[in-house]
Amino acid sequence: MLRSCHRLSNCLKSNFNQTQIRHQHKTNPKVMEKFDLPKRLQGSTPSVWNEYIALAMQYKPLNLGQGFPDDAAPSYVTQTLADIAHDKNHLLHQYTRGYGHLRLVQALAKLYNGLIGRELNPLSDILITSGAYEALYSTIMGHVDVGDEVIIIEPFFDCYEPMVKMAGGVPRFIPLKLRKTEGPISSADWVLDDKELESLFNEKTKMIILNTPHNPIGKVFQRHELERLAELCKKWNVLCVSDEVYEWLVFDGSEHIRICTLPDMFDRTITIGSAGKTFSVTGWKTGWAYGPTHLIRNLQMVHQNSVYTCPTPLQEGVARSFEVELERFGQPESYFVSLPRELQVKRDFMAKFLTEAGMRPTIPEGGYFMLADWSPLAPKVDLSSEQDKHKDYKFTKWMTKNMGLQGIPPSAFYSEPHKSLGEDFVRYCFIKKQENLNKAAELLQKWK
Amino acid sequence: MLRSCHRLSNCLKSNFNQTQIRHQHKTNPKVMEKFDLPKRLQGSTPSVWNEYIALAMQYKPLNLGQGFPDDAAPSYVTQTLADIAHDKNHLLHQYTRGYGHLRLVQALAKLYNGLIGRELNPLSDILITSGAYEALYSTIMGHVDVGDEVIIIEPFFDCYEPMVKMAGGVPRFIPLKLRKTEGPISSADWVLDDKELESLFNEKTKMIILNTPHNPIGKVFQRHELERLAELCKKWNVLCVSDEVYEWLVFDGSEHIRICTLPDMFDRTITIGSAGKTFSVTGWKTGWAYGPTHLIRNLQMVHQNSVYTCPTPLQEGVARSFEVELERFGQPESYFVSLPRELQVKRDFMAKFLTEAGMRPTIPEGGYFMLADWSPLAPKVDLSSEQDKHKDYKFTKWMTKNMGLQGIPPSAFYSEPHKSLGEDFVRYCFIKKQENLNKAAELLQKWK
Repeated sequence: MLRSCHRLSNCLKSNFNQTQIRHQHKTNPKVMEKFDLPKRLQGSTPSVWNEYIALAMQYKPLNLGQGFPDDAAPSYVTQTLADIAHDKNHLLHQYTRGYGHLRLVQALAKLYNGLIGRELNPLSDILITSGAYEALYSTIMGHVDVGDEVIIIEPFFDCYEPMVKMAGGVPRFIPLKLRKTEGPISSADWVLDDKELESLFNEKTKMIILNTPHNPIGKVFQRHELERLAELCKKWNVLCVSDEVYEWLVFDGSEHIRICTLPDMFDRTITIGSAGKTFSVTGWKTGWAYGPTHLIRNLQMVHQNSVYTCPTPLQEGVARSFEVELERFGQPESYFVSLPRELQVKRDFMAKFLTEAGMRPTIPEGGYFMLADWSPLAPKVDLSSEQDKHKDYKFTKWMTKNMGLQGIPPSAFYSEPHKSLGEDFVRYCFIKKQENLNKAAELLQKWK
Repeated sequence: MLRSCHRLSNCLKSNFNQTQIRHQHKTNPKVMEKFDLPKRLQGSTPSVWNEYIALAMQYKPLNLGQGFPDDAAPSYVTQTLADIAHDKNHLLHQYTRGYGHLRLVQALAKLYNGLIGRELNPLSDILITSGAYEALYSTIMGHVDVGDEVIIIEPFFDCYEPMVKMAGGVPRFIPLKLRKTEGPISSADWVLDDKELESLFNEKTKMIILNTPHNPIGKVFQRHELERLAELCKKWNVLCVSDEVYEWLVFDGSEHIRICTLPDMFDRTITIGSAGKTFSVTGWKTGWAYGPTHLIRNLQMVHQNSVYTCPTPLQEGVARSFEVELERFGQPESYFVSLPRELQVKRDFMAKFLTEAGMRPTIPEGGYFMLADWSPLAPKVDLSSEQDKHKDYKFTKWMTKNMGLQGIPPSAFYSEPHKSLGEDFVRYCFIKKQENLNKAAELLQKWK
């Protein structure tokens, strides 16, 4: 046994150098069976990301799949982390307040109070979470009971569905449909069918999940669309969860409207935001939810049982970054102004090269993804070598392996019965270095 | 509306300066009722920490309550964060692998392979979590189904109980009992009654949660005790969750034994660790669980649905810190050697001043908490002014308000029917600056 080994560091090294991994210890089948997933999680599978990250590691394509910037984050943001590392306040490396670091909830209250025209109590109306992801989780687990129905708009950020199911809820899906078949397509051309939407609301409806600006379509919901959603929420006493992580990334002068500002909606809305998306530091995993005390309280209970508190240095860094932005809010040097301005150029560049390659992109009004119809290229690709069920999986894998360019298959963002609606599309991310976008353009140009 | 405000930054400022908080908007009672907590969370209450942190903020006592170091973390650890902030690899600020940053799971595999004498697969046998807290949550939610029984040893880290209940499990409690009434007390004098332990195991038992070194008693479970637990786990096919976050903090040459190294236990054990406790950076909120692939897989599903991925810069920092420690493992300059050596001196100092003040401390073999019987001081305190149900709450609040010294009431770490077992005790944390321990000693000296 290693306990008796005096030079443990050597033992450690030699153990690690054994190339033969000995983890195929025999497992008693009785053990296996009893220790299966609880019912609430049965049917859970690794997400599309696991598969596509592994694919990227194997084929090393130009990766326009995952949604994160591959360029440097703003230096004043990353500098906060260096400052904090050496701050004379040692406590910045220790636990902070569970529901949110004080400096951060105060900065967020200051920001959103101005944006939504009401006073949020930083201590009771804002919860800091391990990314917007955990904000969604705490919202869903904190409100959805067994049998409750939750309306999800397709395509959707793929975690919504398993979160609702884990809570015992019943997802009810409604797709955004493209109402235009000719000429340039805008994300505004993807709309909900009003009759279909109305038919989903009933006594069992607990929640609707809205995502604006929308991933992956880039749709920025317009006032009349939000008013209709609000009307139905009020009629059926439904909670609205508004995932607004791309709130600063809107183009062409589109207006991002927070549904919680519509009449009588604040009391039934939980709004979710993300420092990762706001400051281009997705790896900081700092998000939040805000809303009325009586709704946020339920999220606090889930958060208290699952994560308890979020990292102090990152919360402090985000707080300091927001303080910088609050000082220059609305001015040209504001990151919330400069980032969308720069991104819009990349969006237009991508739209151009995808169109030239023969695809039909949807021009997004917001966010950093572009959905493109690849079906005009069908004659040029041989998908028979790919075993997947859905065409978009086949296409994106073929492209990764044969063209060295990776996108994400949007059918991953549809419920099982509706997956065919995503099959003609591919999702690309354009918050990437210009040199990488150039490479993508060249790859497609050559192919053509 | 603020949308029409051109100088939004001014609006933001003026809004924030309104001292009158306007968040008492009227809430429709119908809305309130429907949006109550789901059944799985009903009965959840804010934890003891909320109450005692608020108390500390109000009375500003010398706080020996919460378990974190108030001194600087090791500089080579905090330095990693400054280095990472400016690293030329920009991707250290973006999403990393969901189940754990590669460099960190590799470092952990290297470390634990040597310690447990087997080869962990870094990709499938280790999950990185948002603190050990989320590792516990993912373990419990990923394994406990409705009606499953979970054995919890009292006193316990207070999150175990609500986590088990949230999963629909049934906690079955067994207290450690002090078998000695005279002379100096060691944490080794707190033991489980074997008949009582055996009686808790049955066909419905899914899991037992072990915590060694133990919070708050400081007990380091001995081999014969672990062997008995292992025997019962194997007999009843029970999963063992071993919370070993204080694994490096053992005193007087006590040996920390990992129960997963006992014969045939690896396949039924999930072991949990913490970078916060290991490197004195509790605010970094980086933890892990390791075990056989078939058990860790279930945790991955919960993690994937709730948090998805943990912060990249902190995981990278922890990985680099472990790499330093792996190089000097077992040598005198190792932090895993120097920290317990320094802490032992503080432990002895605290034991001395608590004894001199008239309390009866349990000398911990591990961890950084000390449980002290304050009942000999009962004649000196007037608890009639405190309204709490339990004596230890009254005592700790009285001490905070009247003596300026804060501890935590251990009845918070017992199930409702057993809370009386904790009432004669107070928990103090001794991983505090010497000057603060000196102050505590002076406060109590003066009182005497």
